[in-house]
Amino acid sequence: MLTRFAAIGATPGGGVTRLCASPEDGRARDLFRETAGVAGAGVRTDAAGNQFARFPLTGDSCAPLVMMGSHLDSQSRAGRFDGTLGVATALRVGAALMRARAAGARFNADFVAVNWTNEEGARFRPSLLGSGVYSGAFTADYALSRRDDNDISLGEALAGIGYLGSAAPPPLPACYLELHVEQGSRLEEAGASIGVVGRNWGAIKIDARFLGEQAHTGPTLMERRRDALLGASYAIAGLREVAARWPGRVHSSVARIRVEPNSANVVPALVTIAVEIRAGDNALLREAGEAAEAVLAQAAARANVTHDIATRTEREVRALPDAPAALVRRCADEAGLRRLDMDTVAGHDALSLLGLCPVGLVFVPSIGGITHNEAEDTAPEDLAAGLTLCTMAAARLCRAGGAPEAALDQED
Amino acid sequence: MLTRFAAIGATPGGGVTRLCASPEDGRARDLFRETAGVAGAGVRTDAAGNQFARFPLTGDSCAPLVMMGSHLDSQSRAGRFDGTLGVATALRVGAALMRARAAGARFNADFVAVNWTNEEGARFRPSLLGSGVYSGAFTADYALSRRDDNDISLGEALAGIGYLGSAAPPPLPACYLELHVEQGSRLEEAGASIGVVGRNWGAIKIDARFLGEQAHTGPTLMERRRDALLGASYAIAGLREVAARWPGRVHSSVARIRVEPNSANVVPALVTIAVEIRAGDNALLREAGEAAEAVLAQAAARANVTHDIATRTEREVRALPDAPAALVRRCADEAGLRRLDMDTVAGHDALSLLGLCPVGLVFVPSIGGITHNEAEDTAPEDLAAGLTLCTMAAARLCRAGGAPEAALDQED
Repeated sequence: MLTRFAAIGATPGGGVTRLCASPEDGRARDLFRETAGVAGAGVRTDAAGNQFARFPLTGDSCAPLVMMGSHLDSQSRAGRFDGTLGVATALRVGAALMRARAAGARFNADFVAVNWTNEEGARFRPSLLGSGVYSGAFTADYALSRRDDNDISLGEALAGIGYLGSAAPPPLPACYLELHVEQGSRLEEAGASIGVVGRNWGAIKIDARFLGEQAHTGPTLMERRRDALLGASYAIAGLREVAARWPGRVHSSVARIRVEPNSANVVPALVTIAVEIRAGDNALLREAGEAAEAVLAQAAARANVTHDIATRTEREVRALPDAPAALVRRCADEAGLRRLDMDTVAGHDALSLLGLCPVGLVFVPSIGGITHNEAEDTAPEDLAAGLTLCTMAAARLCRAGGAPEAALDQED
Repeated sequence: MLTRFAAIGATPGGGVTRLCASPEDGRARDLFRETAGVAGAGVRTDAAGNQFARFPLTGDSCAPLVMMGSHLDSQSRAGRFDGTLGVATALRVGAALMRARAAGARFNADFVAVNWTNEEGARFRPSLLGSGVYSGAFTADYALSRRDDNDISLGEALAGIGYLGSAAPPPLPACYLELHVEQGSRLEEAGASIGVVGRNWGAIKIDARFLGEQAHTGPTLMERRRDALLGASYAIAGLREVAARWPGRVHSSVARIRVEPNSANVVPALVTIAVEIRAGDNALLREAGEAAEAVLAQAAARANVTHDIATRTEREVRALPDAPAALVRRCADEAGLRRLDMDTVAGHDALSLLGLCPVGLVFVPSIGGITHNEAEDTAPEDLAAGLTLCTMAAARLCRAGGAPEAALDQED
């Protein structure tokens, strides 16, 4: 199944480009729907384009739910497993549970595989839009009105591929699990195949604007130029030093820039950069965020331009709940899979649901820690380990009526 | 006539956005054609989209030509006189000469008003495309195959507005004159209304590429990132220091940048920047160019990325010929217009013809030196001074059969 998904939007370098609500995303959604349908699930699409495949294990439409999934959208020239692994694994788990039911197993919860819309934030910003609508962080109207760089809205793009849905999403599950590639190298270094995520680093995300003044790059005297791109460049250089102040404990980045008018002969008048500061400690995050804002101000002053903060979001360090993690550990140990407790630095759809229902996030290794890159890869035995673990945990959860505490007492 | 042109693509801030081969450019071209036609000129469009309006002053289709013009395309949110002043003035001069002929004046050269395609290089690169095709620096095929950021070719865009021509351009003129706004403040500071351009600064233009590696901006360890935008930012900051080493004598800029994939969560893999270094002395230009290339290499090394030079063009400092300048000085003095000999730092269409025929370039003041900006302006009396001077010079040239040396001996 991973091979079939990887063929949709495949790049020459062995990765995928499957931007949210693109024709390629549409074909991946088709495959999700067909695969789930063949396995006996009913599939519906909600107003944010999220796809839910409900596997009827109980025969009771009011049964509690166990939900598992991730996202099928990708960055440009990205890895084939990022997101897709969690969705494909959920579909395989659903099919396995349906076969178990046909063979006589009894379940007390239904299973839902989910494909969340626009996790990446590559085409439409912000990221985590679909799971954010499901969790109530965003309204569907807000999500659908986000526009890409060609001024196409998410709503228009989803309609264009036939995935602007209207179905009510399922109610909150009794437990949500997500399998994802690690996107780092800690598991590889520890020789473990399963990462049990206990915390999510905090993040400050700032869209900063530098405002200069258009002028000719030829005759205009250097001392009279007010170059917004020069200001942004000073900022980018300075923000790297913010991370360097706390080696390994603070991550910083500027990976998106927009320049107007972006003509070789015109001093840039307006430059917007997307700044990210991440840390695993709230006090440190705040201190690094203040340092970053000071860098922005110093950079603007040095370039003789002004600046402002167009948007600023702050997400604190968050702990994941104990019970789903304990269930994952138990399953890993019983399956003989070496495991490691760890943080996630990146955001994932699972984190959208934090605080609303029990949530578990499980990693498998990324070879060499390579991620958001065509060369991203995970060893076949680690892919299998992830599937084994998710199948065990989901079966126990569904037998136990969905609650992870109750599932801890289940045996295979 | 300037008001009518300024209305086409007018911006709320009082400027124009009339990108090459846009619908607005098409409407400005329509106005050029209509205005010239009403005044009795025959208008044709060549394979590069250049418009030539020939005013038949001699009745002899083999008569030598005096050509005057500039460009109707603009940067984004640019000034309404940049380029347009030279074209509109040429149309007014042509009409005045036709009236003089009707009143009995005799001429020995025909007059041609020209609108060159894509002088700005804002939508299609490089700049000076139309005049470059006319001068033989580029083939028409090369020009028409240039693509904008939306992957539309100049040929497609010109066809879309009905200005992909097929007419043979007129032969080289006996003299080419161009009136342009100064885009600096030297005339204003000197209290002069006419600038007589004697030299064009040299320029080195480099498209430099920084090559990093895609990775996640969250979990990827800082020391493992190879961030192409960080490399480009170090370069932009460093290139500003190159100009600072020779205050007033070297200008440097980076005003265009392209980032891939330009997603907030992906460490940039490929960044291309357009670097310009300008100087009025060839040895200095070479030294500053070497300093700039050293900056690029140091910036790449500091960011742990690689770099290469995608394109590099070098244009030496060039002197304009004496005779057209002498004619301009004579006319200014006789009209009582205060004049100043000066350099041009920026390129202009006139410079495409340098070495092929006698070329004169005349400036009128830009208020406050403001240029490539909606607030660009020239005082009405300076606009009138430019028209007076151009009408005098063109009449003398056309009476004298086009040669500027012969025109020096003409009187009004």
